[in-house]
Order: sequence, then structure tokens, then C-alpha cells
Amino acid sequence: MIRTAMSAVEELAACLGSAVISGADASLAYRRDRSLLTAAGTPAAVVRARSAEHVVATLRIADQRGVPVVTRGAGSGLAGGANAIDGCIVLCTERMNRILSIDEHTRTATVEAGVINSDVATAAAAHGLWYVPDPGSRDFSTIGGNIATNAGGACCAKYGVTADHVARIKAVLPGGQIIHTGSATRKNTAGLNLTQLLVGSEGTLAVIVEATVRLRQLPSETATLVATFPSATAATSAVASLTAATEPSLVEFMDNTTIAAVNRMTKMGLDEAAGGMLLIQCDGDSAHTQIERCAAACGELQPIELYVTADAREGAALMQARRVALTALEKCGSTLLDDLAVPVPQLASMLTAISEIATRHELLIGTFGHAADGNLHPTIVFDAADPDAVFRARRAFSDMVARCLELGGSITGEHGVGQLKSSFLTQMVGVAERRLMGDIKSVFDPRGILNPGRGV
Amino acid sequence: MIRTAMSAVEELAACLGSAVISGADASLAYRRDRSLLTAAGTPAAVVRARSAEHVVATLRIADQRGVPVVTRGAGSGLAGGANAIDGCIVLCTERMNRILSIDEHTRTATVEAGVINSDVATAAAAHGLWYVPDPGSRDFSTIGGNIATNAGGACCAKYGVTADHVARIKAVLPGGQIIHTGSATRKNTAGLNLTQLLVGSEGTLAVIVEATVRLRQLPSETATLVATFPSATAATSAVASLTAATEPSLVEFMDNTTIAAVNRMTKMGLDEAAGGMLLIQCDGDSAHTQIERCAAACGELQPIELYVTADAREGAALMQARRVALTALEKCGSTLLDDLAVPVPQLASMLTAISEIATRHELLIGTFGHAADGNLHPTIVFDAADPDAVFRARRAFSDMVARCLELGGSITGEHGVGQLKSSFLTQMVGVAERRLMGDIKSVFDPRGILNPGRGV
Repeated sequence: MIRTAMSAVEELAACLGSAVISGADASLAYRRDRSLLTAAGTPAAVVRARSAEHVVATLRIADQRGVPVVTRGAGSGLAGGANAIDGCIVLCTERMNRILSIDEHTRTATVEAGVINSDVATAAAAHGLWYVPDPGSRDFSTIGGNIATNAGGACCAKYGVTADHVARIKAVLPGGQIIHTGSATRKNTAGLNLTQLLVGSEGTLAVIVEATVRLRQLPSETATLVATFPSATAATSAVASLTAATEPSLVEFMDNTTIAAVNRMTKMGLDEAAGGMLLIQCDGDSAHTQIERCAAACGELQPIELYVTADAREGAALMQARRVALTALEKCGSTLLDDLAVPVPQLASMLTAISEIATRHELLIGTFGHAADGNLHPTIVFDAADPDAVFRARRAFSDMVARCLELGGSITGEHGVGQLKSSFLTQMVGVAERRLMGDIKSVFDPRGILNPGRGV
Repeated sequence: MIRTAMSAVEELAACLGSAVISGADASLAYRRDRSLLTAAGTPAAVVRARSAEHVVATLRIADQRGVPVVTRGAGSGLAGGANAIDGCIVLCTERMNRILSIDEHTRTATVEAGVINSDVATAAAAHGLWYVPDPGSRDFSTIGGNIATNAGGACCAKYGVTADHVARIKAVLPGGQIIHTGSATRKNTAGLNLTQLLVGSEGTLAVIVEATVRLRQLPSETATLVATFPSATAATSAVASLTAATEPSLVEFMDNTTIAAVNRMTKMGLDEAAGGMLLIQCDGDSAHTQIERCAAACGELQPIELYVTADAREGAALMQARRVALTALEKCGSTLLDDLAVPVPQLASMLTAISEIATRHELLIGTFGHAADGNLHPTIVFDAADPDAVFRARRAFSDMVARCLELGGSITGEHGVGQLKSSFLTQMVGVAERRLMGDIKSVFDPRGILNPGRGV
């Protein structure tokens, strides 16, 4: 295995020159994504591809020699899906970062896979347009990685996930064949939907090198509501009323542990006595009417406080409380971040279960998330240097996933399966369905070189 | 082949009793969809399934014996995808028409495949909810068929196609294995997206027996604008301005030929001198503000007339002009309906090409469609009893598809590939991409019994 990988590295270096790095540097900088408690091997080489041709050459060589390839964008993944495998080639798209076009007439952007999400948004905004998907990592994650994990974010409440904004994908198959999927048109039902098959495939089917994403007009107005409640379940109970009353662009949730952690870090003056907080935004021409409707819906559920603002900058400042939630919890210890989605009516039951699991395993768990989608990120805070705490954290993680499945939920709303969820995938999708997924992977990747053992 | 099919019929009859019909009756009522100029064979039997168990039994028997199965809902398809193949089993889901649940809390409906689209919408409306997808066939087409063809409609302009409203699918594989795809949650990125693979697969991968679809709150307001222009291209030029100014829920187009045909049939007092007409609706809290913005955008493009109404019933009456477009053209002769989608900036070029093609082949072509999506239905009106006219109609049809591809368009926006577009599919999607589609089909359907030769 090592000999094969080494000669692959030599061939790669001969073919791609300085785009190929190997040795300790490669290993250090490119062997892990942002997840904790996931395994990471030592790559034989890292290819920092600058073009689709680099990707083609890499996959041709890897496929011939049967060397595993782990593709990564910025390495911002949270499920271990981009961690190196021993002897693999890490194929990094971060240098493929050109915005190829912003088309105002079709309202699309065509970008290389390594372009940062917020760079697309900024380029679009210069044309009065909006790239909507807003994962928490938007300032450092790449479009290619966003597509490969079907990244979500807050605005999904109204506008959907990354999948809903991808029109076309250019990708490379093992062996080096380039494929183009999708259509420039809004409607297209010609043949099987290869685009949506690639979205969320976590580097197991092909390597995404370019994408055309849809843009929208920037919203005319944004109005914001902050609502605090005595308990977390009171806050989540308000979510169904809100979304029945109108269509918020986002409904974010923080529990008491998260509120306190954020307040300690930011001194924003949040109410640390509140059991739960909702941050709600409505956008468009009727943003203010809509936010008043949200406030009325919350008002019927004995909130501690309601605060409404039609000022977009103030709204953005308030949203900052939610955006720093993970950073604030990270200041309390090592964190194991989960990513569960339940039907909205089950949010309260899921929160109750999380609380019981925290007590049972003697752990601090702070929970925040995208409440309108039922997408929660219970974050286990523990001491990674204490083997017993690590053991309890892993147990708590599994217990939360199991409870989520009992409630009819999904084991991953927006982070992907990666390593963290692969042992739960069959239970989630079913035996026959998982076999189909594996057989579809074999269609794209008959030698099984692309991110083996993950995602599918 | 006939002997195999006959014994399959005997086994089916023994197993499913009166659900199985054969002979001339079966052939007459179930051998064709609504398309013209497509081949239709003689089925060995028709199974009018009443349950998923009937579908399982049918596919088990068919797969064992290698008998082709053509699945149909209401037979309202327009591409020949549900026409019988000689010796096949036609598997009809029209009797699987139970609405299993409407869940107000998750805003979803779970229905059997044979439920009529508008019956779902009516049942949802009783709960103040809305099933959005509105294909022209909504009053007689089934949800299963809508999903299998990824049916579109008018409201796609704002709300997307059928694909965007499907949360879960229950389907049966050849051999009889039942699979469940998707998740009850809004966000789910666990494994490959089998749901979106089944959407638009035209009965080639599995037989859809049940689906959970997403519902929305009914919009609070609807406002309507009718705009007439001296030329068809002036009308379509307005589309980009409109959709840049706001987000209409629909933007429907009719050319002069269609306007005249509709007016002759309905005596609605439409302006037969107009070269093109747009019917525009905006919905939601700011519907009236939005429609005024649309009117202002149209006003800058020298319209003949603009008419705005905030009355939803009057709006629905005006929309009727567009809804009867195909019926009105059918009164002028036999019709060959096309379904092309181009990028919106190419609408004018496509219309010019259609006009030139009509002249070249000495045919009447009336064009209407969903302008905001670039989705046009040029409808060739000809004398089906005249072999030369049939020949010219086929030539014109091919010429329009070819021009659509040159303009970066899709060979089918919402009707599917079926028979009518199968010869163009490789050119549309590419050789390697079509091979992937065929290999994916083989994963689901290794013996190739499901709608062979179509869709993929």
C-alpha cells in the first residue's frame, strides 16, 4: 500500500509540480476538518489543485493505482468527512477560487469549487443580487464543500438549503472524465437528476470543480424580533405558531446554557435567566407587518420579553448573538457539536431528551439551532483530556441521535454523515435504501477510491 | 414473449383477481397517454392496483418473468412515457387514491400515488393550507404522475416545481422490495438523495406508491396584472424587468395565435391584435405593492394596455384565458405540444426561431407558457389526416428542440422525456452523463423491466 501510494505521489509530482506537497507539512495542515473525536490518517500527498485539469490528472492517477482520494474545500466540515485516510491523496480545491461570472440576466453565478461562500455573496451584492445559503461557516467555507455536504444555515427557513440554489455542477469522475449536470434553465426534467445526487454526496461520487448557483434580488426590508421565554420548550412551542402566522426568513433558537455562554463572552446584556430565546427575522416588502404578526404569536405564549426592530443594522447586531454561539460554548471546554433535525412539533420533546441525557451523563450541553427547520445543534461541552468525560460525551452523542430517530428525525440536517454519523446511516435510511446508495456510488466510483467508508 | 406474458397474466389474475383486466377493453382505455404522434403497443394486461401490496405482487411477477411494466397514473402525460409497450403490463395507480393524512403541524400531506393533484389541494385548503404545484392537468393528473414527471405549472415562478414540494416517497422496486426515501424533516442530508432521483424518473427506477408532500399557508392576498404588447418579443422582454423588480407568483405568456384561438372560443374580449400578452400574479401581504411594481416595469416597454386588479376572483377569471390555451388551440386542428425551457434572456430568440420554423414548414404554431421560468409550449396545429402535414409537424418539432439546445435550453421543462424527447436526451445531457443515468437505472432495475427505452 505505501509503495503504491509513493509511486502515485511521484507520478503526481511529475505531472502537477508544485501543486503537490507531501510530508509532515501536508499532514499537519490538511489532515483534519473542524470536527472533534474523529479519526484522521496520514495522507501520502496533498494536491492543491489550481484547475479542473489538476483534478482530472489527480483522479486519473489515483484511479489507476487504487489510491483513496479525500476531497476538501476549506476543511470546515464538522463530521470528519474531509479527514485524511492513511496513504490517501488529499485533493484540496481551495486554490480553485475564481468567480467565473455573475449573470444579472439569469441571476446566476458560476464559480470554481474553492470560492468562499461569502465571496460569492459579496460579488453578487455588487450587482444588487443575493446568494442566500448562509451556513455558520460562510466566511471561510467553500461553495464546493457547501454543495458536497448540502450545507444549510439560518435562511433555509424561507429559502431552502444549498441544494435549492444549485443549477449546474461540473465534476470529475474517478478516471478523469468530466461531467456536467443540470441546466441553465429554472425548469428542467430531462433524465435523472444527477445534480441533486451530487449535492450532499460528501465527495463519494465525483469531485465538484465548478458550480452555477442561483441568485435572488436582495430583500427590500428586514425586520427583527427577539423573544425570550421562561423555558426552552416554551420558546420552541412558539415556532409552530410563528410559521403558521407568516413566513419568517429565519427563526433561530438558543437555550439557557448558550445564552449564558454568549453573554459572558459578548457582554451583550442578554437575559441569562431566560430558559430560551428566539431570534426571528422577516424580509421583503411586508417585513414589518410580518414581524408584528410574529410578535403577536409569541405574545400569546407568556414571553419574558419581546423586542422588535425594523432597523436592518440593529437586526444584524442582534443576530450576532446567535452567530457566535458555538465560539462562546468553545470557551467553556472542548465541544462535540451535533446536528439533528426533528419535525417542528417534536422540538420540545427533543429538548427535553437532551436535558435528560445531559443529566444522565453528567455533562453540560448547550443547544442552539435553526428552529423553523427543527434543526438543532446540541453541543456537548467536556474536558477532552479526561478519558471518562470523552467516553460520556460519546455516549451522550449516541443517545441524542437515537432519540432523534425515535422522534422521526434525521441524523444530520446540514453537516453531513462523514464519520460521526456513518454508524447510524442504515438505521436512518433503511437496509435496502442504503444498498441502493452503495450501488449508486459504485456506478460513479467502481474502484471505490472516493472518500471510502464515508457519507454513503 | 407472448407465452411468457400470457402466463404472467394468469399468475397476476390468480394473485390479484379483479384488479387485473386484459383484452380489448384494457388495450383501449389504458394504452395511451395524452400525447399525439407517439407509438402505443398492446398490453398483455392492465393491473388497476388498489394498494401497495398489489404493486408489490405485480412487480414480483413481472420481474421474475422479465415482462415490461409501464406505470401510469391518470394517463395525462404529454410525452408518450405512459403508452403501453407490446406485451407489457400496464400498472395503473388511479385506484390508489386515498389521502392518508393532512398534518397541520408539520404542514404536510401524505397521499397514495393515484390521488388527483387538485384533490390534495382541496383537502389542504380545508385546513387553511396550500398544495402549490399547479400543472395545467391539475384537475385530472395524479400526484404519482406529477412526481414521476416532475410536473411544473404556473406557480413555479415563485414556488418551484413538484420536486421542491416532495418530502418523502414510498416506492416499490422491481422484485417487490418496498423502499422509503427522504425525511419528515425540512432539512436532511443523510446519504444520497434518492427522493430527487425518483422525482422525474418517469417510471424507470421504481413505482411510486405513496408520497409526503409539503404544504404552505394559503397566501393572504393575490393581485393580477394583464399586459398586452404589440409583439411577442416585447412581451417576453418585459419578463426580465418584472422579475428583477419583484417576485411574481406567476408570469404567463400567450402569443397572438393563442390569444386569437382563446378569444374565439371564450369570447372574453381579448385584444386579437396584440402580438403578445402577459398574465402576472403577485401574492402575499404585499401583493398589491408588488403588482404595481410589475405594472411600472411593463409600462416602460410600450404596452398596448395594462389592467390591474386586486380582486382574487377577477384574477382567477383572467387566468382562465391562459388555462384554456391548449383546449382552444385543439379546436383549430390536431396539436403537437412541445415543452421547451430556455434561459429567460433567450425567450425572444426562441420565439423568433419558432416563428421562422412555422413559416419554413408552412404550419400554424401557437405558443404559450410559463415565461418567468423560460418554459414555452409551442403548439403545432396541423391536420393529422394529412401525411405531409404530419411529416412537416415532426420536422418543425425537431427544429424547435434543436434551436432550444443551441440557446442553452432544456429539451423538457415539465413534461418529461417520454418517447417524444428520447432521441434528444444524449445531446442534452452528454454521453458520459447519459451512461451514468443508464447505469443508475440498472441499479434499481437490473432486468430492465420498468418503462424500457424511456426517460433515462
